[in-house]
This record gives sequence, C-alpha cells and structure tokens, in this order.
Amino acid sequence: MIDSRAILFVIGLLVTGLGLLMLLPALADAAASNPDWQVFIASSIVTVTVGVGLSLATRGSDSARFSLRHAFLLTATSWIVMSAFAAIPFNFISTKMHYADALFEAISGLTTTGSTVLTGIDSLPPGMLLWRALLQWIGGVGIIVMAIIMLPFLRVGGMQLFQAESSDRSEKVVPRPTQLVGYIFAIYSLLTALCFFGYHMAGMDWFDALCHAMTTLSTGGYSTHDASMGFFNSGAVLWIGTIFMAAGAFPFVVYIKLVRGHPEAIWKDSQIQTLLGLLAITSLLLAVWHAERNQITLLDALTHTAFNVTSVVTTTGFASMDYTLWGPLAVGVFFMLTFVGGATGSTAGGIKIFRFQILWLITRAYLKKLVSPSRAQVLIYEGRVVPTDVPYAVLAFIAVFLGTVAIVTAVLTALGLDFVTSLTAAATAITNVGPGLGEIIGPAGNFTTLPELAKWVLAATMLLGRLELFTVLVLLEPDFWRG
Amino acid sequence: MIDSRAILFVIGLLVTGLGLLMLLPALADAAASNPDWQVFIASSIVTVTVGVGLSLATRGSDSARFSLRHAFLLTATSWIVMSAFAAIPFNFISTKMHYADALFEAISGLTTTGSTVLTGIDSLPPGMLLWRALLQWIGGVGIIVMAIIMLPFLRVGGMQLFQAESSDRSEKVVPRPTQLVGYIFAIYSLLTALCFFGYHMAGMDWFDALCHAMTTLSTGGYSTHDASMGFFNSGAVLWIGTIFMAAGAFPFVVYIKLVRGHPEAIWKDSQIQTLLGLLAITSLLLAVWHAERNQITLLDALTHTAFNVTSVVTTTGFASMDYTLWGPLAVGVFFMLTFVGGATGSTAGGIKIFRFQILWLITRAYLKKLVSPSRAQVLIYEGRVVPTDVPYAVLAFIAVFLGTVAIVTAVLTALGLDFVTSLTAAATAITNVGPGLGEIIGPAGNFTTLPELAKWVLAATMLLGRLELFTVLVLLEPDFWRG
Repeated sequence: MIDSRAILFVIGLLVTGLGLLMLLPALADAAASNPDWQVFIASSIVTVTVGVGLSLATRGSDSARFSLRHAFLLTATSWIVMSAFAAIPFNFISTKMHYADALFEAISGLTTTGSTVLTGIDSLPPGMLLWRALLQWIGGVGIIVMAIIMLPFLRVGGMQLFQAESSDRSEKVVPRPTQLVGYIFAIYSLLTALCFFGYHMAGMDWFDALCHAMTTLSTGGYSTHDASMGFFNSGAVLWIGTIFMAAGAFPFVVYIKLVRGHPEAIWKDSQIQTLLGLLAITSLLLAVWHAERNQITLLDALTHTAFNVTSVVTTTGFASMDYTLWGPLAVGVFFMLTFVGGATGSTAGGIKIFRFQILWLITRAYLKKLVSPSRAQVLIYEGRVVPTDVPYAVLAFIAVFLGTVAIVTAVLTALGLDFVTSLTAAATAITNVGPGLGEIIGPAGNFTTLPELAKWVLAATMLLGRLELFTVLVLLEPDFWRG
Repeated sequence: MIDSRAILFVIGLLVTGLGLLMLLPALADAAASNPDWQVFIASSIVTVTVGVGLSLATRGSDSARFSLRHAFLLTATSWIVMSAFAAIPFNFISTKMHYADALFEAISGLTTTGSTVLTGIDSLPPGMLLWRALLQWIGGVGIIVMAIIMLPFLRVGGMQLFQAESSDRSEKVVPRPTQLVGYIFAIYSLLTALCFFGYHMAGMDWFDALCHAMTTLSTGGYSTHDASMGFFNSGAVLWIGTIFMAAGAFPFVVYIKLVRGHPEAIWKDSQIQTLLGLLAITSLLLAVWHAERNQITLLDALTHTAFNVTSVVTTTGFASMDYTLWGPLAVGVFFMLTFVGGATGSTAGGIKIFRFQILWLITRAYLKKLVSPSRAQVLIYEGRVVPTDVPYAVLAFIAVFLGTVAIVTAVLTALGLDFVTSLTAAATAITNVGPGLGEIIGPAGNFTTLPELAKWVLAATMLLGRLELFTVLVLLEPDFWRG
C-alpha cells in the first residue's frame, strides 16, 4: 500500500502557492478598475484555504518513506490538481467559460501548450491575460525542475541518461536539489527579464512585453492578441522572440554550468548543437523556397521562417502569420517539426532532441551490426557509454508517443472532426506545441468550436505529453499498486 | 571487395524466368486478336536473351564464397533489375506509357503495392491485364520466399526471431531450402486456384476470376476494372475476397506445418490470432458505426467494412467503394490501418503484426521495470525467450519506417502535392498497400496525375518498404563496402 499523506502534503503546498499567485491578476484587474478582481480574490481564498488545509491535515507525515512510487504518484497528480484549481478563475470570470473550456485553457497553460479556446483575446481584461501568461510561466519552470530532478530518478523515457547531471555529476555543479531549484528559478527569471526588456525596446507596451516574455521563455505561446505575434508587425519583435524561444528550449543544466564558470558548456552540448543546426538549416531552406514562391525578399522570408520554425520546434506555438498559406511544403514541414521538440531539461515538449540522437546512434549501430554480426557495437553519447536500458526506454517512448497520436486521432475523427484537424490536434496536444493545421485549429484558428468531449480528450493528451507518457502510464500497471 | 559474379548469375536466372513468363500475356493477346502480342513476344526475346547471356557469362562462379554481403546485394538488386525488365512491355504497348509510368506500374506490381497510373482499365487489352496480375502473383511468392529463407538469415528488422522456423526448427518441418520453396509455391498455387474457383462461382468470368485470384493471394490489389471490386456489385465476391486476402497475409510457414500433419499450428500461431482479432473487432465496430451513420443494414455494412478493412490491413488495396465517403472516422481508421500490415513470411507489407507484438512486450516490460527497477524482465514470444538483439532491431525498423514516411511526405509536398495526398501516398507506398486518401489518390482515384518526379520517389519508396528498409539501407553503410 502507498501512504498518500506525504504526497498530499506537497500538493497542499503547491496549491497554496498557486492560490497566492492569483493575487497578481487581481491586482492587475483592480488597477484597470475591472470588477473581475473580485473573482481572482475569491478564487485565491478558496485555493489557499484548500491548500493550507491539505498541508496542515497531512503535515508530519514520514517523508523518509517517500519511495519511487510516491514520486510517480506525486508527479502525475500534482499537475492534475494544479490544473483543476488554475481553472477556477476562468470559470467564474465576467466573460464566463464553461468548466470544460476553463479546464482546457488552464491545462493548455500549465503544460505550456498554448492552444486556446478563447476568441476576442485583444479585448479581454488584463487580469485574465496575466493569469494565462502566469500559468505558462510557472508551468515552464515546473517542467524544468521536474525534468532535471524527478524524471532522471524515475528513469522515464530514457531520462536516466541525464541522471549523472542531476545526481553524481551535479555534485560538481551544485550540491543539493534545493540549490539546483534556486539556480533554475534565478536563471529562468533572468532570461524572462531580458526578454521583457527586448520586447519593450522593440515597441511592445510594458504589459504585452511582460505577458509575452513569460510565454516565450516557457515556450508556451499564449498571446494577448488574436493575431499572436503578427499583431506587432515588427521584425525586431520576431527576432527577439526567436532568440528567447530557442533559449527556453536549451537544457537548463547548461545555463547552471555557464553561471558557475563553465561558459564552454553551452557550445559543447550536443543537444544545443543539433537544435541550432536544425533550426538554422530548416529556416534557411524554407526561406529560400518561401521568398522564391511568394515573391518576397529573402530577409523578410527568413524573419518569418526562422520565427515560425523556432516557434514550432521549441513547442511554443506563436505565429507571425498563417504559414499554411505559404504552400504545401510549409504545411508538410510544419507538421513534421511538430514532433521534434527541444532539449530535455528545458521548457519544451515533443519527442525531444536527445531521443532523436539516441535513435540515430541505435540505427547506425544496427546497420553496422547487420554488416558485421559478430562485432560488438557500443553507443557513445556526449563522450560516455549509453546505459543498456536507455535505448529500450527511448524507443518504447517514441512508440507509445506515436501510438497515442494514432489513438487520439481515431477518437477525434469518431467525434466527427475531419482527418487533418484530428491528426494535427492529436500531434499538437501531445507535443505541447499549440496550433494544428487546417482551417479550424490552424495558426489562424483556435479550439473554441471543437465538441466538448474533444476538448477533454485533448486536455488529457496535453497532460500525458507533458508528463512524458510513462509517468502516467505506470499508474495503469497493476504491479504499481501491489506490494 | 565483393565478387559480384555469383549475384549476377542468380539475377540472370530470375530475368530469364521473367522473360519466359511474358509469353503468357502474348498468348492472351493473340487469342483476343490484339496486336500487342508482338510487344510481349519482343519483350520476352529481349529479356530472355539478356537473362541467359548474363547467366552464361557468370556461370561457374564460386557459390561457396556467397557471403552475407552477397545475400544483401542480391536481395536488393534483384528486385530493381526485375522491375526494370517487367516495365518493358508497358513501355511499348499500343496504349503507350512513358517509362516513368511503366516503371511505376511494374514496381507497384512486383512489390504487390497495387497503386496504378492507369485509367480506363476496363478497356485495356487482356495481355496487359494479365501481365499486371502476373507481376503481383510472382512478386507475392517472391516476397514469401525472401521473408522465410533470406531475411531471417540477414537478421533484418528483427526477422532473426523467425530464424528458428527456417533453419533449426524447419529441420523438423522440411529438410532443405529448395524443398521449402517447393512447398511455398505449391501452397500458394493451391490457394490461388481455390480463390479462382470461388470468384468464378460467385459470378466473375474466368479471366477476371484468374486475374483477381492472383492479385488477391499476393495481397497486391490490381484489378481489371477502374471500380476495383466494386464493379462486381456482389456480396459473395467481397466475402471470398476477404477470406483469401486474409489467407495471403497469414505466415506461410504455418501452412507448411498444416499440410505436413500439424493442423493445430494455424490456431496456435499468435500472429494469426492477433491479425484475425484485429480484423474482426475493427470491421465490427466500423460496421456498427457505418450502418448507424449511413442508414444501411448491419450485414451490408459489415460486408463492406470487413472487405475494405481486410484489404488495407493485409496491404492488398482493393476497394469495394469509396470508403472515405462514409465519414471522418473511416478516414482516420483507414489511415491508421495502412501501417499495420499482415504477418511476416506472408505476401503482406506494412510494419507487420509481429513487430507490434514485440513492441507491446517491450512496453509492458519497460513499465514493469519502471515500477521495480531491480527486477529483471524477460520477453517471451510464442513460448520462447526473445533474443536480446530483436527488440533493438524491431524498434530501429519502426523508427526508420516512420522517419521515411516523414521524409517522403516532405519531398512530395515540396513537389507541390497537398498535405493529405503527400502523407498518405508516402504511407501507402512504404507499406505496399495501394490507395491513399484524398481526391487524387484515394480509393476512387489513381496516381496518373502526379508529377513524374513524385512517381519515381514513390516507386523507390515501394521497393524500400518491400525490402524491409534495412536490406537497402545496409548498402549505404560505408562498412558494407570495406574489407
């Protein structure tokens, strides 16, 4: 039996924090004399009360008995509980949302997906806009902490490859998990501040700059405008966005090494090399094609291809314009890029760069083995031998990932959605990207008109993707609940 | 260095056989007083001359030096050379085809894909119709022989799992490879004859029955009518087709055991169990939905869902009607089913049932490992321990398979094809199914209007899929050509 008291204690603390955070949008609405400030205050009181009550009721639990199973259960349930409370303000605000819509918006926020069921975003009260941005921002830092501290310990999807970075090797970098969290939070805040100043100097007002900085670094993609980044009609804004979306998709362990006096770590990291190489080559090739086909200058084309390619690969989901109108190649390429994702230990979702690197190593080794069956093949990643269980984990991850896309697609078509909408909605939800393809959920559309059941399915898919699948699936394994 | 004489000798023999086979369509055209008989006679003379010449020039080569590399090279090149010669009659026939079209049709035939660039098929001369059917029929038996005898030896894509069936264990079933080929050929012919009689009794004329029997057992899907199996407007024809398409997708080793006095083998084979279970459940669920949505009787719905589901899963590609008009669920489900494929050691393409079974075993074992990291997990398949290199091979296969679909999709969109056409063309080519989705290449369309370059790309993709990817990819590995 699993003693759930220690889990509930931690969740109580997290919920309390979330409730306190609701005071910020309350302030924003009060400053704008919008009566919605009362909704945020009320939501905050309810949330903090539940959170504090939960923690008090379960305090003094034996944290020494916090096992592997507790860690799995805490990881999976904390995101669900946080989403449920984060949805409360959306549900009671003046521009009322049904609870399905409110929960969809909250989960899409916390998982940094960025798919929205809202229209007329430009005219929403500031509190609501700030709350959406804040959810993505805390979701982003939450996933970095989870990916660096929890997942390698849980060995999910091949993350044990990075165990060294959080345990053995981190003894050289930073001694304790709490200190690690402090570093992550400080670096994340600093990058957000830099992005804020960049956007502000490029012409955004301070509120837009703040909201977009929070949803850029978290690779979330919520905007304060229906037209997303296209609203600002500024090349400078797009390039600043491109840089900081990429920064959000870098492995944060590298930043910690950087500030602790190892600047070379950033250039030597193979995930960063591969990510930047992919972004540069794809953006350039697409820009040449786009400039040629649509008769615009190469620089103008590159500004938009770099921004939108980076937005999709880093799983942010901002759009500078409807790139599906560029031509069929753009549609095909953006669909494929949806799956890639950023580095592990970043705010990005998707399959992630290191899994493609491991896949490449396995395939090369397998080809060599076919030619010379008797010769042993050793996989080397970042100068170290890959543990034997990592390839299995990576490949099981990719298989379940794509299998989930297939199942969700089938479910959505059964609900009456067309094939392209269903397929790309499934893909964009599990990768936490945001926009899909087609007229309904494409970069120029939104998720408002989907049937309610489709929204529940997609919200669950976002959580599944954000939690790297196996953190949830392990709870379905009968062995998990046995002695 | 690889001594290619032994390879060329075998290819010479195969080409000679192909040339002799061209005499059958010559006879059919002569009987129908169609002047195209001369084209087939001339093609036959050229092909036999080249084949005999090649064999004579390379005879007496040291077959004892026939190594693993020779086997790879022979497997890959023989299909390409055979396709090039098989295309000759198409190129010179009275209803002239460009060479790209002729080669596409020949490769689509030999790989038992069944995608066609022909329209007005109903009015084609009998020689050409017979040649298309014959190509699929010999392609079908060719792939069974390759999958049972060559691939387990080459250890391609996890096929070493079935090594026991062709080497160790086959000593109990049949002693020698030549005898094994004899059994396969006899069983394949017998099943084709049964299918022929079935179709004929259900109302097809003997020529249609013959052509369709050959393209049913080979899970090829070429028809003698533009409307495919819908032409006959007969439930009996569809059910006979359903049964024999499934029979073509069964592992042929099981049939050998059956005729050698082990009838229980057919019910105990886990690939057959999974395949039949999948077909039954999918057809039934889709039938209930189809009957409800489109207001037809359940039996009528089941006749069509069973036929079309079996057609796509077994990678045959016949259509009884345009199933994409049934509704979005049908579109989504048929897209997914495209990837499944039949059993290994059958005429079917696709990822294949056993790889999904291994994938399921790996994922279950991985989940149990997450819960209990210290407990060892052993994979058991068909009562035997799975060799440790099989999971890697299976997963590398699936990854490269899906990666190829992604790359081919991108290339096709770059050539200007729309996203759905590109994605489903890539999928249907690599799985050797036949029809894609959308208005152009859907079950009611064909591949005629695609740009020539797209046809080359798709023809190459069909070969890649038919040869289980790694048989070709291994030739790109520098180690292959070294000492």
